[in-house]
Amino acid sequence: MSLVVVGSVALDSLETPFGRREEVLGGSASYFSVAASFFGPVGVVAVVGEDFPDRHLDFLSSRGVDLQGLVRRPGRTFRWKGRYELDLNVAHTLDTQLNVFAEFAPELPPSYRDCEYVFLGNIDPDLQRGVLDQVRRPRLVGCDTMNYWITAKRESLLRTLERVDMLFVNDAEVRQLSGEHNVVKAAGAVLRMGPRAVVVKRGEHGALFFADGEVFASSAVPLSAVFDPTGAGDTFAGGFMGYLSAAPRADHAAMRRAIVLGSVLASFAVEQFSLDRLRTLTPQEIRTRYAEARRQAHFDDLEPQVLSGLTGG
Amino acid sequence: MSLVVVGSVALDSLETPFGRREEVLGGSASYFSVAASFFGPVGVVAVVGEDFPDRHLDFLSSRGVDLQGLVRRPGRTFRWKGRYELDLNVAHTLDTQLNVFAEFAPELPPSYRDCEYVFLGNIDPDLQRGVLDQVRRPRLVGCDTMNYWITAKRESLLRTLERVDMLFVNDAEVRQLSGEHNVVKAAGAVLRMGPRAVVVKRGEHGALFFADGEVFASSAVPLSAVFDPTGAGDTFAGGFMGYLSAAPRADHAAMRRAIVLGSVLASFAVEQFSLDRLRTLTPQEIRTRYAEARRQAHFDDLEPQVLSGLTGG
Repeated sequence: MSLVVVGSVALDSLETPFGRREEVLGGSASYFSVAASFFGPVGVVAVVGEDFPDRHLDFLSSRGVDLQGLVRRPGRTFRWKGRYELDLNVAHTLDTQLNVFAEFAPELPPSYRDCEYVFLGNIDPDLQRGVLDQVRRPRLVGCDTMNYWITAKRESLLRTLERVDMLFVNDAEVRQLSGEHNVVKAAGAVLRMGPRAVVVKRGEHGALFFADGEVFASSAVPLSAVFDPTGAGDTFAGGFMGYLSAAPRADHAAMRRAIVLGSVLASFAVEQFSLDRLRTLTPQEIRTRYAEARRQAHFDDLEPQVLSGLTGG
Repeated sequence: MSLVVVGSVALDSLETPFGRREEVLGGSASYFSVAASFFGPVGVVAVVGEDFPDRHLDFLSSRGVDLQGLVRRPGRTFRWKGRYELDLNVAHTLDTQLNVFAEFAPELPPSYRDCEYVFLGNIDPDLQRGVLDQVRRPRLVGCDTMNYWITAKRESLLRTLERVDMLFVNDAEVRQLSGEHNVVKAAGAVLRMGPRAVVVKRGEHGALFFADGEVFASSAVPLSAVFDPTGAGDTFAGGFMGYLSAAPRADHAAMRRAIVLGSVLASFAVEQFSLDRLRTLTPQEIRTRYAEARRQAHFDDLEPQVLSGLTGG
């Protein structure tokens, strides 16, 4: 297995201004793995309860997601209930039932231990390091986290970050982690904690990529209909790392393409509830939206006469 | 005169988390004209009071700004007092004294009436149309507005928009004007009101450009120090229209370069209080930051093997 994700597989109940759904497929590992599956095989390390519907497992399998690392335990599946405002950036958690996820101790099947790419979903940083202890020599370790771990388990998180290549965070998280309000300074501070790259996810405003001396500022594809932002960040990371695991190189230019592909996958995911849009997504749609993103972002050098005509100073 | 701006010339008192300044040069026409002056001549139509310091006029003249349209009237100059939070997107107006600006009735000197580019700063839409009645055949009319006019003088604003080529607004304004929360839909609605292009300014998140079938999503240059955001939008518009007035063509590709130049000029303006950073700004700094913005925004096509390896649907 070249790419492995460790995270949650959940049943989500969602309310948005556009509708509601009860107990639909959710969880970071679900979004990540399905997004990554467009590029190649991906193994999932997660836990579900006895009540988890077989049809969701069948769907993941049908996408080429390897489920050897997905264990079923006595008890109920992790449930999350959330509500979004008309400004979909504003989310309210109405209920969290960890259930079997409370005792999650990720164990990698032997065939996963030689993986080249690992994504540590948003779980306890102790468990994230437990995963790293089980892999041999990954080329690239990606990591997500959240406000809770940044405050409640800061020391543990910092130990994890020393072993991580790339951190995926949002604006608020990178500020909280670094204590810097300015995002550029905040990313610089995080780079000094261990990761050699930081991706700051900004939802509808795109993403920023920081690595030694390198900055890539990516706009999100402007969408006329955003329906359900749940899982957008994990879909982004899945597209990012799925692409890298399939790409011939993982240099900075490839990281840029990975960020745009992550944004493209996320832009589809938010168009419908749960993973529904990813179920029908075709390679051609991905290709077309990537080309559109490129067309929408690029601009030319200035004309020589404008350059030479500049005055001031 | 090829480019003319109509707007305010003011004395601003500013508080930011990084310091404060009393009665410094401000106003939409000041920021616009100085930003535009890097590209070529620009005429200002505005009003100041008897108390307006000559040194500010000398500075504008030294930048090549034409002041034939700047009149001095009995009374005090327009004053604005504002405070910014650590999140500089959050601004509080502490005091507004319109003074001579309350009776502003823009009158264009004869030499301005053949101008090719006009920017209608954020003033009463009745006055904006009064300006348009005085110009002969401008190639491009740009227009700014604000929440107050959108609600208090909506009908008048809509009549102005019918005569405008390009509207410059922020996220909140385009939503308010259109009644659409989604920015893409909102911009589409505004395009049906008259303008053939809409620029949505998003501060640190860059800008979006919409014209018939065309979308350009520009990231702002990520800055490690933002000091005073006052005038950023007017500086953006000044860079945009200053460039266009100097460029050989005003096609969509040029609009893209104009947006990036607007962002570049604004990115400098916010580095110091008032127009201070623009006083020392050099052509070489503009060229360098434009090249940096281009380097930070561009990405390549996907590799053929990734494109052909995509699976799904």
